[in-house]
Amino acid sequence: MRRRAEAAPRSVFAAALPAVGEPIAWNDDEARYLARVVRARAGASVTATDGHGGVAEVLLTVVGTTCEGRVMRRDQRTRGRTLMLMCGAPEGDRGDWLVEKAAEFGVAVLQPIDTERGAWTQAAAREARWQRLARAALRQSCGCWELELRPVLRLAEALTLAAGSERWLAEAGGTAAGQRPAATSGATTVVVGPASGFSDAERNALAENGFQSIALASVRLRAETAALAAAAWWAAAEPA
Amino acid sequence: MRRRAEAAPRSVFAAALPAVGEPIAWNDDEARYLARVVRARAGASVTATDGHGGVAEVLLTVVGTTCEGRVMRRDQRTRGRTLMLMCGAPEGDRGDWLVEKAAEFGVAVLQPIDTERGAWTQAAAREARWQRLARAALRQSCGCWELELRPVLRLAEALTLAAGSERWLAEAGGTAAGQRPAATSGATTVVVGPASGFSDAERNALAENGFQSIALASVRLRAETAALAAAAWWAAAEPA
Repeated sequence: MRRRAEAAPRSVFAAALPAVGEPIAWNDDEARYLARVVRARAGASVTATDGHGGVAEVLLTVVGTTCEGRVMRRDQRTRGRTLMLMCGAPEGDRGDWLVEKAAEFGVAVLQPIDTERGAWTQAAAREARWQRLARAALRQSCGCWELELRPVLRLAEALTLAAGSERWLAEAGGTAAGQRPAATSGATTVVVGPASGFSDAERNALAENGFQSIALASVRLRAETAALAAAAWWAAAEPA
Repeated sequence: MRRRAEAAPRSVFAAALPAVGEPIAWNDDEARYLARVVRARAGASVTATDGHGGVAEVLLTVVGTTCEGRVMRRDQRTRGRTLMLMCGAPEGDRGDWLVEKAAEFGVAVLQPIDTERGAWTQAAAREARWQRLARAALRQSCGCWELELRPVLRLAEALTLAAGSERWLAEAGGTAAGQRPAATSGATTVVVGPASGFSDAERNALAENGFQSIALASVRLRAETAALAAAAWWAAAEPA
């Protein structure tokens, strides 16, 4: 573990990033992460992000239950491309790792959708847990854009949110996703059905709203696996 | 659950597939799956696979603690393309879902590799669990090729196994994977480093053995997430 800690870049979340020269402090999950997981030491540099493109280089002065430091540099990134995943309900507690992995791949928005054959029964109760998982994934991936977890909507209500984006419906029989790289700029939306799939009426509504079919695999994927495959497909198109 | 059971195709594993007209029976996980999870009934048809490309249509005659049926049709598929994932050790128990997801995507071989910065400490103890997870994923995905879980090897020992395949090293800074679709036929190998990454010496050995770099994402991915992204990238290139 020690070796990993020294080799890996370190990134932590900070709700607000002070200006260069100003102090910054943590006494929450981020402090525990710095002190216990990556075992940072006073004098080390870490990256802090506000999850909205703000990135700061912080020189740590105190590491413990509370961690303190000073902002040495401060950047504001712009976002060239975004992915909104509209996702039907997975089975059981598989939403947990859907959230974690979506956050890790840098998905912009996770929009849970209730459909004729599947409802998100756990989303409200899991909200705090999912926020924690998403934040841990942000640290882990050294990204600077936090996953936005939206409240559940009915598919029909969610469809208009995709207007103006590149719109894809993940389903067997579509064009192989590998032959249709994701857009390298702008907004992309991928819709993934629930465990039991979309009804014909829902599929028609998606087609009428400009969603084109792509096949993420030739085998049948679980809802959360398909969502992750969509996120991977999108992430793979990011220019180096 | 009832609706899902009726909508979803059903696939079960059978170590040996009898000839057309012959009886077949299950009294294990597969029987439980048929009776309790998908609630199949006598008179229903299910697909059985031996995980080696053999596929049978089975008419169920008895569904219960033991399930019985008769083979109505029998095919032997051939395999046009394969993926071997050589994967460094993920953290904690994340190997569990690496196995599940690799099996779901139809990965042919999962070759765990010990590297300078990461060793698979759980692989031997988890073997039986991983076999069960892989088999459940085979059912779920309605595939007909079972994931082959190999014993752990040192990276240097594993490298020769990739000879003759398309060889890729997943790493930040490589060509964007979205711009290099996976081969649509033949053997592909993707190497993914452990949580703490490869050493320079290991990276050199990979380059000398013909591994080219691809970037699966512009952010930093956990070992198991990178492996999943590689599997998704490969699966997305499958012709419809």
